[in-house]
Amino acid sequence: MFEYEINAKEGRARAGVLHTPHGDLQTPVFAPVGTQATVKTLTPEQLKELDASLLLSNTYHLYLRPGDELVAEMGGLHQFMQWPRPMLTDSGGFQVFSLAKTRKIDDEGVTFKSHIDGSRHRFTPEKSIAIQENLGADIIMAFDECSDPNDHVYSQKAMERTHRWAERSLQAHQRADQALFGIVQGGVDPDLRATSAEFIASLPFPGIAIGGLSVGETKEEMHRTLDVVTPLLPENKPRYLMGVGTPEDLINGIARGVDIFDCVLPTRLARHHAAFSSTGRLNLMNATFSHDPRPIDESCDCYTCRTFTRAYIRHLIVAKELLAGTLISIHNLRALIRLVKDIRGFIVDGSFESKVPALLAQWDNNAQRQKQSVNLNL
Amino acid sequence: MFEYEINAKEGRARAGVLHTPHGDLQTPVFAPVGTQATVKTLTPEQLKELDASLLLSNTYHLYLRPGDELVAEMGGLHQFMQWPRPMLTDSGGFQVFSLAKTRKIDDEGVTFKSHIDGSRHRFTPEKSIAIQENLGADIIMAFDECSDPNDHVYSQKAMERTHRWAERSLQAHQRADQALFGIVQGGVDPDLRATSAEFIASLPFPGIAIGGLSVGETKEEMHRTLDVVTPLLPENKPRYLMGVGTPEDLINGIARGVDIFDCVLPTRLARHHAAFSSTGRLNLMNATFSHDPRPIDESCDCYTCRTFTRAYIRHLIVAKELLAGTLISIHNLRALIRLVKDIRGFIVDGSFESKVPALLAQWDNNAQRQKQSVNLNL
Repeated sequence: MFEYEINAKEGRARAGVLHTPHGDLQTPVFAPVGTQATVKTLTPEQLKELDASLLLSNTYHLYLRPGDELVAEMGGLHQFMQWPRPMLTDSGGFQVFSLAKTRKIDDEGVTFKSHIDGSRHRFTPEKSIAIQENLGADIIMAFDECSDPNDHVYSQKAMERTHRWAERSLQAHQRADQALFGIVQGGVDPDLRATSAEFIASLPFPGIAIGGLSVGETKEEMHRTLDVVTPLLPENKPRYLMGVGTPEDLINGIARGVDIFDCVLPTRLARHHAAFSSTGRLNLMNATFSHDPRPIDESCDCYTCRTFTRAYIRHLIVAKELLAGTLISIHNLRALIRLVKDIRGFIVDGSFESKVPALLAQWDNNAQRQKQSVNLNL
Repeated sequence: MFEYEINAKEGRARAGVLHTPHGDLQTPVFAPVGTQATVKTLTPEQLKELDASLLLSNTYHLYLRPGDELVAEMGGLHQFMQWPRPMLTDSGGFQVFSLAKTRKIDDEGVTFKSHIDGSRHRFTPEKSIAIQENLGADIIMAFDECSDPNDHVYSQKAMERTHRWAERSLQAHQRADQALFGIVQGGVDPDLRATSAEFIASLPFPGIAIGGLSVGETKEEMHRTLDVVTPLLPENKPRYLMGVGTPEDLINGIARGVDIFDCVLPTRLARHHAAFSSTGRLNLMNATFSHDPRPIDESCDCYTCRTFTRAYIRHLIVAKELLAGTLISIHNLRALIRLVKDIRGFIVDGSFESKVPALLAQWDNNAQRQKQSVNLNL
């Protein structure tokens, strides 16, 4: 269980397979986020159709509502939300630090108030693991503390606490059908990151996550951090870059040896009418699209692009019809899942590195915007 | 085209087939409502899966947004919303009278202000038909005036105008691939209804609608009106009871010779967390369901009931996740479509009349509530 096989390597990029109790995960993989045991507006059938293989759900949210014990009583998260493929839960740490009210951290754990009703709760490494065991995802996370990347003193303190909590999480974890991943922290300081990578790599985790990125640092800082961390991690364990990212982040992350990604971006953009496309990000509410008979992206194979015109989707947006969010979510998720799957193929046939510049030109939103304004399309 | 075959009769109830350019419609049939060219929150795939055969869309709404000319430019309503099966549009009359601001009726037509932006518009019978020809549904409606059923003088005036407008609608209609239905009005006055039924039946409409019901009259008045009208209508034309209704209305309507129904109720109830079930209407937000591992209705064959527990659906509702509305809509629509399909089978095998009391006991919400409170389930 949880054996990780590497099928192909190209530079630092890897194409692998992670064996889980709910089936094999081909990596690199992008995981849609189902915060509250649902990927917003989509049925599991729709997620299967767009070829999602791994879903993430949030421990903090499910603990508060409906409660991890209820989920356990209903047979666990897979059964509760009817997702038959692999799942991952985070530790709840990041949400306690970013969403909860009036949190108080000590070496034992964190006391916080719920963002929903202000009720008082306490997470410790042991509690986070117990909740995640109740939820029953295939991949679960050690409890960690995510620091402000620009605060060096805090980053060091949070990293040291994360290391102690990593050992306690390992100690607490009992279910053999779950892979517990450790988390590398350390802000954007290369020395702290190296220390953290070496420490977490020394513990018997079957996989390693890189936390504390995509939280306000620059793209250069993210890349430099990955350049420090991934070379220090064991080859034979999957690496998961938490909460990342944009299409260009996926390309850059895979090139730096990352295997697993998750992000709310595709579904969040969809709710704001924005769609990925191979010719640039589109805001489908734009009046330009009102008579446009083309699909969102002519090169996309998703249900939305096979079926509906931009004109129809724009009508749904203007008429405030919720189907718009569903259709754009399907497209955006499929776009990232397909991008990552295509990259896997390139790694296998040894062409990924040569394709990185073209992929970035196609998918980097900033690069596209510059190109578009040169072409006077904007 | 639009030939109507009756396969079986039992009392006044009929099982038939209406041939349309988008396939054969088995009647009786219940049509989900897709007001703005979308059945709220559902994809066409989901509608096909729950066996919807006829969809209704609203002329008033589509004329205002995105505009019937845009829909025509996009290939018509079927193409625009990607619904390959039969469609029906209403005349816009009812919405002008119920939704638009400051309307002014004269013998030529109605001037009104849009409920969206207050802009000024005018509908005449000729305009309504022109819009419906642009939209391109298989079944379209003559322009009519729906009166307050309790105002006899107005009901007579509105009926007479509806008759003149019926003739003008017939005159204006040109597309041979659309069936134009006339509409019987007359409020709840049996004499007016008889006059209207005879007049509309005398015109060369391929089908006849009964309008002005489910607008504030009692159930007894609705039944009495149907008892007056349907016996005066030709056997060989389909009859459509507009905007109706509840499960018990469908049972009572079919027993009185109605073939086609439409109603927003299943999707509207779903958005308010209410589900039809064979043991009574359920409000799924109720805390009773928080640990309930059963499907909404154990006797239902819909995707929602085959897949999800009440506990999960309640969680989605409490967590304000839109998937709740989607899942309950699927269930509620399937429940009515299946009820009507089952009744068709009963008519064919001659058992419908004997089953009416049991069907009403099962599906009449008031009867169920009485039974439930006796059983102390409420």
